[in-house]
Amino acid sequence: MATTTPLPLATPMARTSRSPIVEAQSWVAGKTFAPDRPLLNVSQAAPMAPPPLALRQEIARLAVEDDEVHLYGAVLGLDALRAELARQVSTTYHAQVNAADIAITSGANEAFTAVMSTLAASGDEVILPTPWYFNHKMWCDMAGVTAVPLPTGADMLPDLEQAASLITPRTRAIVLVTPNNPAGVEYPSELLTKFYVLARTHGIDLVVDETYRDFDAREGAPHILLRQPDWRDTLVQIYSFSKAYRLTGHRVGALTASPERLLQVEKYLDTVTICPNQLGQRAALWGMQNLGDWLAGERDEILKRRRALEDGFAPLAAKGWTLLGTGGFFAYVAHPFDMASSALAPWLVDHAGVLVLPATFFTPAGDPRGARELRIAFANLDCDAITDLLERLQQIDP
Amino acid sequence: MATTTPLPLATPMARTSRSPIVEAQSWVAGKTFAPDRPLLNVSQAAPMAPPPLALRQEIARLAVEDDEVHLYGAVLGLDALRAELARQVSTTYHAQVNAADIAITSGANEAFTAVMSTLAASGDEVILPTPWYFNHKMWCDMAGVTAVPLPTGADMLPDLEQAASLITPRTRAIVLVTPNNPAGVEYPSELLTKFYVLARTHGIDLVVDETYRDFDAREGAPHILLRQPDWRDTLVQIYSFSKAYRLTGHRVGALTASPERLLQVEKYLDTVTICPNQLGQRAALWGMQNLGDWLAGERDEILKRRRALEDGFAPLAAKGWTLLGTGGFFAYVAHPFDMASSALAPWLVDHAGVLVLPATFFTPAGDPRGARELRIAFANLDCDAITDLLERLQQIDP
Repeated sequence: MATTTPLPLATPMARTSRSPIVEAQSWVAGKTFAPDRPLLNVSQAAPMAPPPLALRQEIARLAVEDDEVHLYGAVLGLDALRAELARQVSTTYHAQVNAADIAITSGANEAFTAVMSTLAASGDEVILPTPWYFNHKMWCDMAGVTAVPLPTGADMLPDLEQAASLITPRTRAIVLVTPNNPAGVEYPSELLTKFYVLARTHGIDLVVDETYRDFDAREGAPHILLRQPDWRDTLVQIYSFSKAYRLTGHRVGALTASPERLLQVEKYLDTVTICPNQLGQRAALWGMQNLGDWLAGERDEILKRRRALEDGFAPLAAKGWTLLGTGGFFAYVAHPFDMASSALAPWLVDHAGVLVLPATFFTPAGDPRGARELRIAFANLDCDAITDLLERLQQIDP
Repeated sequence: MATTTPLPLATPMARTSRSPIVEAQSWVAGKTFAPDRPLLNVSQAAPMAPPPLALRQEIARLAVEDDEVHLYGAVLGLDALRAELARQVSTTYHAQVNAADIAITSGANEAFTAVMSTLAASGDEVILPTPWYFNHKMWCDMAGVTAVPLPTGADMLPDLEQAASLITPRTRAIVLVTPNNPAGVEYPSELLTKFYVLARTHGIDLVVDETYRDFDAREGAPHILLRQPDWRDTLVQIYSFSKAYRLTGHRVGALTASPERLLQVEKYLDTVTICPNQLGQRAALWGMQNLGDWLAGERDEILKRRRALEDGFAPLAAKGWTLLGTGGFFAYVAHPFDMASSALAPWLVDHAGVLVLPATFFTPAGDPRGARELRIAFANLDCDAITDLLERLQQIDP
């Protein structure tokens, strides 16, 4: 037998980039930071603290007392959680969404990959505004689906006419993320309606990822898409319980789509994960039923952090930085340096004790934005740490 | 806007069949069974009881005391669990497997879909012995990969020469399941070695799914593949913690493969589920570290159930039934009736209070085996219930 053979590797996976989060973590691996100047990790949008004690105690109680949490559950998720999310979505969006319109998934990423696998396959096209969420792009690459970039403007919003011009007979969906990852910006309701009409006119789907909707600064429903009588023919909505209830480690997300589409999604979920983990689903349910006031406080806190970042940005702006968007968990900025962001980001670890992601992770190869821009997951930091972050960035001279 | 539009559906997903488990569950939905004659559910291989109290208490303790279990973890899994599984695999197989050769996944199904996504893509071929595990076939269908059936013989084992004749330039892997799902049979070590050499000679991968390995009736290592010096170039091993530690509801599985391949697997896992759920991983780790004796007892019990089924089969054999294979969680049988198994299985729910899966779920369309054979997940039942099952089957006259 031969000694070493080259790794046999499927072409689509070979073309898929490495996870940016994993790559960024490698920049800090093995490094230590002074106790009085700890690493400010604003790379991954992730609550840094566990859920409230009462929720942790409920998980503990169920683990001991409820046999069901250790056994397989329904592929599309726990009936009670589907019903509760349907009820809350109906209230939030002034719509009539049923439990049968909801699937629970092993996180919002799986919600995306599951529904996209029913919409698009090798050779098809999907339109993604840029900067895009990297895992959306990675899924397209590994599925052999062409991610068609739709560059956003100075306001970080996609243009409807430009989107229309990108639609071809192979286009299967337009994917929008609001509040946006990575750009933070909250998409205006009117813009979402226009994209809905565009998608509907072309017989393609509009997939709206609302992972960060609980932290939208606007009052009331962020859009009216679920009030359209035929929304089930066109719209797919993605949600995550991870950010709202600090359950990132439990992997629970959700999809809103037609029951007909969920029958197809069910094939994917059964094949990939069989069912979402049972304890996590019950934790999400308990959170929805008991942590409404707490979540409202979490939203207030994150909006306070956002204002701290916006209000404290002036000294950076004076040094040539631009704040392009804030919202949800993210601020999206342009830096003034000659150094490309892909070099600047690892440099910042060593010289500022700051871990941010360069826009190269969110942009097509060769896009000039990639070199100039950075994503800051500001909501990971409290207001004092945000002040610290802004001061550290003011001091650098790469 | 139009009233109803046809569901836009990606062709590979349209070609994928519905989950057999979901379909079988629909046969019993809404039905009631007499308390003195409860439903004997031998459809899905799933422990019917929760894990031991001490493990449940450990999960409860961690939920309250360990903040980390609520936060994101490493994409490839918890370091301590990777190390512990590497240690135990090394011991079991008399091999040197490292933590870097192990990835933890959200169940063994995701281990399969993740690694297969690095091996094969649309237009490629994968060889699966038939009857096959339906989720393997479903993944091939939804990925646009051709599942090439390799019919097994009367002994339920695949033939090496026949496998060799099916290899084409598009073949990317041969997938073997041992102990087999659905046929129960434990693949002889020598046969596995021959398939390893065959795969290696052709520069393709051999994927061995050992989800049920903890219940193999044989003593010692079930194969010597991990002792081959270059196994990392050819071999992928799949494992599940679900059956051993009764953790089906927690979704924790594993892959053994080269670190080079796991770098590719990491792209998939990051995109689909980000990380395995954190509590489940710690439950699996605690189980591996503390439940060795308990698991040995579980194995003894399942082997006892297997003997109960084998020893009690004679009256069925006298009526024309054939026991084709037993092992792991499964017995695989041929029935003597004119009725096709796809009709017989739902008929059995109503007339015998038994839920089994017909072989049509495990065979290519038109395969005559599909009509004659059934899979029985006997390990779900204790010995008394197995006796009851065999008696009920003796009494039917469809």
